[in-house]
Amino acid sequence: MSTGSAHARETASIAEASEEAPAGEPTPRARRGRPGYDRAQVLEIAVRLFNEQGYDATSVSSLAAELGLSKAALYHHFASKEQILEIALDDALGGLESVLDGALADEGTAATRLVTVIAGAVRVLTSRLPQVTLLLRVHGNSEIERAALERRRIFDQRVAHLVGQAQQEGALRRDIRPSVTTRLMFGMINSIIEWYRPAHTSLTPEELVDDVTRVIFDGLRAR
Amino acid sequence: MSTGSAHARETASIAEASEEAPAGEPTPRARRGRPGYDRAQVLEIAVRLFNEQGYDATSVSSLAAELGLSKAALYHHFASKEQILEIALDDALGGLESVLDGALADEGTAATRLVTVIAGAVRVLTSRLPQVTLLLRVHGNSEIERAALERRRIFDQRVAHLVGQAQQEGALRRDIRPSVTTRLMFGMINSIIEWYRPAHTSLTPEELVDDVTRVIFDGLRAR
Repeated sequence: MSTGSAHARETASIAEASEEAPAGEPTPRARRGRPGYDRAQVLEIAVRLFNEQGYDATSVSSLAAELGLSKAALYHHFASKEQILEIALDDALGGLESVLDGALADEGTAATRLVTVIAGAVRVLTSRLPQVTLLLRVHGNSEIERAALERRRIFDQRVAHLVGQAQQEGALRRDIRPSVTTRLMFGMINSIIEWYRPAHTSLTPEELVDDVTRVIFDGLRAR
Repeated sequence: MSTGSAHARETASIAEASEEAPAGEPTPRARRGRPGYDRAQVLEIAVRLFNEQGYDATSVSSLAAELGLSKAALYHHFASKEQILEIALDDALGGLESVLDGALADEGTAATRLVTVIAGAVRVLTSRLPQVTLLLRVHGNSEIERAALERRRIFDQRVAHLVGQAQQEGALRRDIRPSVTTRLMFGMINSIIEWYRPAHTSLTPEELVDDVTRVIFDGLRAR
């Protein structure tokens, strides 16, 4: 996971550097004259292509073409398309698991920990949108994808367990099953990848954290 | 929309008739000896294939092969793959739009109408899971898909307008933008397609309607 975090920092700094260009739009001209791509840039562009075209539909050739690299140059950075997928999925899952591990290591009630998990998950989604988007679209067509789905399942179970504890504490309503509560909660959180585009809205990630937390705990009803 | 409803009834009765077989599993043996498929059955199987393999990746040949029909026999039911997509998307969108039209035609407060929209949308999702799944995965690669996305956009706008009215009435909290509220609300509702499988759970569609409505309006906090 420390590798995952280091990589996340690299990705974040690249995202900041290229903020002028709208996300998802190829910028071949801007790339001309650059000495080449580093590993993190190749990863970023690969993940964007996977999300746009689908992982299965994206060939190493089309990725090399998009980068303007030979396949050999691409293989200098990554052993395979599968390796790129694995790293990106690990980045998303590692981020979510770190949030949960941190929250569970905290002192405090289950309800407090759950707030920490929700806020942390929203932050992971907003800061690693492409990687989480890839994760949420995985359908289990390969070993790597099935392993990622299994990690998601374990994550969901651990959160559902925490929801159950918060219900037993009396902090959360008990008339909805913990598994359903967890599904609905993450349904709301995960939907962020579908519509939240930090570059195109005045809604900051931290405002989104607040909005999501308030809706999940207190609902929409005025009080 | 009356066509959409008639078709939904047909699809529902087929779903009931084939309830013994797990959803998503091909049942070639059971099909043997049948005189053939009617239009609704072809549509049902096509939508399942689109959801499993992706619409773009599903050829008319592979659909004909799955059905054990010649392409000519398939074209007896539908003019094109695009037509099947269009009918399925219209079924999902028509269902959601009918719910909204009905709610807006009702007497009562904006908040009451919003409850009706949420409950109705959950019912459309649980009763037309395959069609709504297809709708939610559309990415705008063709005219038909772009038209469906535009209808979704208009639907979202109309719901956001209703949310704004309910805020002005004082029924809903005003500290979250109507557009964000609508996104989060439908994020939760739409996530149902990812995990709700009526045949594999004791949670009934009406219990799910209650759970979703309670979480959206009152949140998870015990009161």
